[in-house]
Amino acid sequence: MRRDASSSRDRLVAGAADLLARHGLGTMTVRELARHANAPLGSTYHYFPGGKPELAAEAVRWADRETGAVLRQGLGDGPVEGLREFVQMWRRTLVDSDFGRGCAVMAVAVHENPGDAARDAAVFAFSNWTTELSAVLRRRGVSHDAAADLATLVIAAVEGAVAMCRAERSLQPLEVVAARLEGLLRS
Amino acid sequence: MRRDASSSRDRLVAGAADLLARHGLGTMTVRELARHANAPLGSTYHYFPGGKPELAAEAVRWADRETGAVLRQGLGDGPVEGLREFVQMWRRTLVDSDFGRGCAVMAVAVHENPGDAARDAAVFAFSNWTTELSAVLRRRGVSHDAAADLATLVIAAVEGAVAMCRAERSLQPLEVVAARLEGLLRS
Repeated sequence: MRRDASSSRDRLVAGAADLLARHGLGTMTVRELARHANAPLGSTYHYFPGGKPELAAEAVRWADRETGAVLRQGLGDGPVEGLREFVQMWRRTLVDSDFGRGCAVMAVAVHENPGDAARDAAVFAFSNWTTELSAVLRRRGVSHDAAADLATLVIAAVEGAVAMCRAERSLQPLEVVAARLEGLLRS
Repeated sequence: MRRDASSSRDRLVAGAADLLARHGLGTMTVRELARHANAPLGSTYHYFPGGKPELAAEAVRWADRETGAVLRQGLGDGPVEGLREFVQMWRRTLVDSDFGRGCAVMAVAVHENPGDAARDAAVFAFSNWTTELSAVLRRRGVSHDAAADLATLVIAAVEGAVAMCRAERSLQPLEVVAARLEGLLRS
């Protein structure tokens, strides 16, 4: 029972992250999520009594964990490998959704009033990814400040490129940016 | 009369760009724009008989022109100066809006179904900015492909950093990214 309950809730959170990554925060509601996830409205409210703000924050945390895990796995082999896994994840996300899906964290970041919990989760996500990459760069001898700055550039550029890819319906901006960033990480 | 009519419409388009840059595409409607711009609903529909898709496309074109003009002005003095003007514009946008405003083009790019006209306008905007910067780099002796790639990296990274700044409510990501990009443009 407990596992079922937890996995129902997880499925709803993943659905909310998908909605965010497709349409942004503006139109996301508990009602839309229930429809999107093909779940009863009552149970959706049951799992998220805090409504949309709670849902958005949970969705961002989910996206943070999923993306962080992919990045971390690559980083085990080095900074370039971390970038490659990160980029490969976005490539798959874009192609599998016919360029309909992007980044749920970005969706919250570009909204004026996402609510404190969702905004905090977005800041935490960007910071997690940047810190993971930065730590690996430091272990390769890059100075503390240079590592942090380069990691911020990598995350910002990939996030920006993913959005450009969605508009263009082409992987080109991501491929170009990934190649330039790989050059920077190597040097 | 004609000038009045044109300036009323222009004011509405600027208002739509502001709405997009704050809340994204999801919740933007002709009705919300009329409220936001303090304009009669009837005249708003009169100017935009195509409704939301027309409004969104016009707003993106407006943002493209405004941003392109700032970038071009800086680029007259060189690529680094172009980047500086571009970054300074975003710094002002973020600070003046207490981190509430971002990029209207980005707002359309991150939506799954922005409509063909708005998506085309977004692709055109990113391409305009990239082409302007790339042309100036080529005039400084950078090869065609390297100039195009570097210009794409610059636009993607600044756009990503602006979103990160909005989440953090701090200019830090933009400052870090701008400094790294300036180094790349110099070298």
